Amino acid sequence: MLNPPVVSAFLPPRRILMGPGPSDVYPQVLAAQSRPTIGHLDPLFIGMMDELKSLLQYAFQTKNDMTLAVSAPGSAGMETCFVNLLEPGDTVIVCRNGVFGDRMRQNVERCGAEAIVVDNAWGEPVDPHAVEAALVANPKAKYLAFVHAETSTGALSDAKTLCALARKFGCLSIVDAVTSLGGVELKVDEWGIDAIYSGSQKCLSCVPGLSPVSFSPAAVEKIKQRKTVVQSWFLDQSLVMNYWSGGAKRSYHHTAPVNTLYALHESLRLLAQEGLENAWQRHRDMHKILKQELQRLGLEFVVAEESRLPQLNTVYIPKGVDDAAIRKQLLVQYNLEIGAGLGEFAGKAWRIGLMGYAARRENIVLCIKALENVLA
Amino acid sequence: MLNPPVVSAFLPPRRILMGPGPSDVYPQVLAAQSRPTIGHLDPLFIGMMDELKSLLQYAFQTKNDMTLAVSAPGSAGMETCFVNLLEPGDTVIVCRNGVFGDRMRQNVERCGAEAIVVDNAWGEPVDPHAVEAALVANPKAKYLAFVHAETSTGALSDAKTLCALARKFGCLSIVDAVTSLGGVELKVDEWGIDAIYSGSQKCLSCVPGLSPVSFSPAAVEKIKQRKTVVQSWFLDQSLVMNYWSGGAKRSYHHTAPVNTLYALHESLRLLAQEGLENAWQRHRDMHKILKQELQRLGLEFVVAEESRLPQLNTVYIPKGVDDAAIRKQLLVQYNLEIGAGLGEFAGKAWRIGLMGYAARRENIVLCIKALENVLA
Repeated sequence: MLNPPVVSAFLPPRRILMGPGPSDVYPQVLAAQSRPTIGHLDPLFIGMMDELKSLLQYAFQTKNDMTLAVSAPGSAGMETCFVNLLEPGDTVIVCRNGVFGDRMRQNVERCGAEAIVVDNAWGEPVDPHAVEAALVANPKAKYLAFVHAETSTGALSDAKTLCALARKFGCLSIVDAVTSLGGVELKVDEWGIDAIYSGSQKCLSCVPGLSPVSFSPAAVEKIKQRKTVVQSWFLDQSLVMNYWSGGAKRSYHHTAPVNTLYALHESLRLLAQEGLENAWQRHRDMHKILKQELQRLGLEFVVAEESRLPQLNTVYIPKGVDDAAIRKQLLVQYNLEIGAGLGEFAGKAWRIGLMGYAARRENIVLCIKALENVLA
Repeated sequence: MLNPPVVSAFLPPRRILMGPGPSDVYPQVLAAQSRPTIGHLDPLFIGMMDELKSLLQYAFQTKNDMTLAVSAPGSAGMETCFVNLLEPGDTVIVCRNGVFGDRMRQNVERCGAEAIVVDNAWGEPVDPHAVEAALVANPKAKYLAFVHAETSTGALSDAKTLCALARKFGCLSIVDAVTSLGGVELKVDEWGIDAIYSGSQKCLSCVPGLSPVSFSPAAVEKIKQRKTVVQSWFLDQSLVMNYWSGGAKRSYHHTAPVNTLYALHESLRLLAQEGLENAWQRHRDMHKILKQELQRLGLEFVVAEESRLPQLNTVYIPKGVDDAAIRKQLLVQYNLEIGAGLGEFAGKAWRIGLMGYAARRENIVLCIKALENVLA
């Protein structure tokens, strides 16, 4: 027998999370998560799941019946959308203006489909004209996929216009709303989004690990008409929906992550209590204050003002400043986490999040004063 | 704008979970889970992950470097093993003596590989002679896949013998240990298991949502030699390993389910503290008491004594007894959950779990007295 390692209980400090996610988690959410685990087929749990579905529909602003939380992080939500909709040989227009657009491309290719990539520079939004040109040039395209709020750059794209374009050319839209849900305006039904996924750990200020998704009736129809079986058993929505929509006759698919779902229920309940429009406004208000303060410190934004995400502020690292050393100082001396740059921006930019519960005055004060001190 | 639903906080009761999982969760695990969320790239979090890996290696009794927890439930752990190892056209011998053996077959086929199914009756263990015959008859087979502890029936198969057979015929073994890990003897290195997956919510008595997995050096070599890309981006271990094994240079793959990993760390720490062999013995001891009491009530076991799982006791429902009504009475009147039958045993059997923290004298007393009352 191998010997047991001697390990103490892990007692993490209280950090202030102002990176690109996970964001600060509501204390109420942590409390909800630690409530007693009950069975995933317990009638009380099923009642909770019904509430959760209506809360998700509210957050997404949709009446889509196929609205649920995938039992895994946002990347699995992305994969859920692609593997359920795409079939081998399909053509997909994929917009790429950061890490997550490229991840979409990889998903498309792993489904045996063809990705036509529309590139925009990192830090810029997706250009609808370029997308229209790609749609014109590729009449066989069945889907248009893009990232609403690019977590790697802080750029917001015009989802409403892009979805209208998709519809005009007979395509279904697949939208990454990992960083946008709860932080900026997002209206699934009004904008005609067909498949959308998000993450629990951004503007919902829930713990990481779940991915809210929603499929329009047209997307559901596409899934029903598939000629090939979905390549993933775990993410096959035709199986999962028997659990989420079965009502009293719910059938077992996999064991739901019970306690994490308690947490999501609570975070969405807090969002509903605040009101979506109020939450969007709060993110704008807090961004405005942070922006002024960052500019006062001489930090320059990567993204142009009109497409800047209020909840994710990407600024260039001043010349001569040691990226890693500064972030370490913030973490060790102030328990403050800000995000490093990702991909093209690694070592060149910081990402300062104001997501969900993190978007508060006291956090801004701390962040600015701490930055001022460590940059001095 | 759609209106927000009016939803109260969800306050689940304290149930006693004696079904097939989720099992009773250690109070220490619920407490660990509710500690402050920190970033998934925080040095303190990475230190916790290193400990978690050594705790998983202990639980599996392996030195495999590729030992980690998939950020999703056991079904995703199953899929992780199949999609990373299999390539289209591969032949796999799949043993089926319950629901989960058949799920393995579905996974094999969704990888574009061929499943040669070896059937055994539900409630029986996998028959090594039948497996040997299949290995002889299918010299092209590259893998042997089987379920160590069938959660749908309560039968334990002889993993040591089956893995030796796989090796003898040049196959790698893929083992489902969802219900066995922590509950019965399991020695990954000594038995020569090549790929194994489990779940957090059974004998580890952690919350549901994570799937411990481990790959032998031979399995890792197979993954490295793949000619085709893994069909799942989320489950692609060549990408995930950069996060789990990268040490200080860990690279981002997906946002780890931070708080659920705290919970798993704590549950494995408690297992290491008790000692694996003591935990196995406790499950046997508690099973012995429960067995005597169930037999006193006239309930008959589905599985023969020599292949009966101590942690999952499947008994026939007495003639004339209303299955659903009895389980509902136990739940409503006693806050006690026992499991329904699954698949062939739906409506015919109950599954009474004694998993991890649930395997305690006080639970047995309650379960027997409650059953006695509601069956009277």
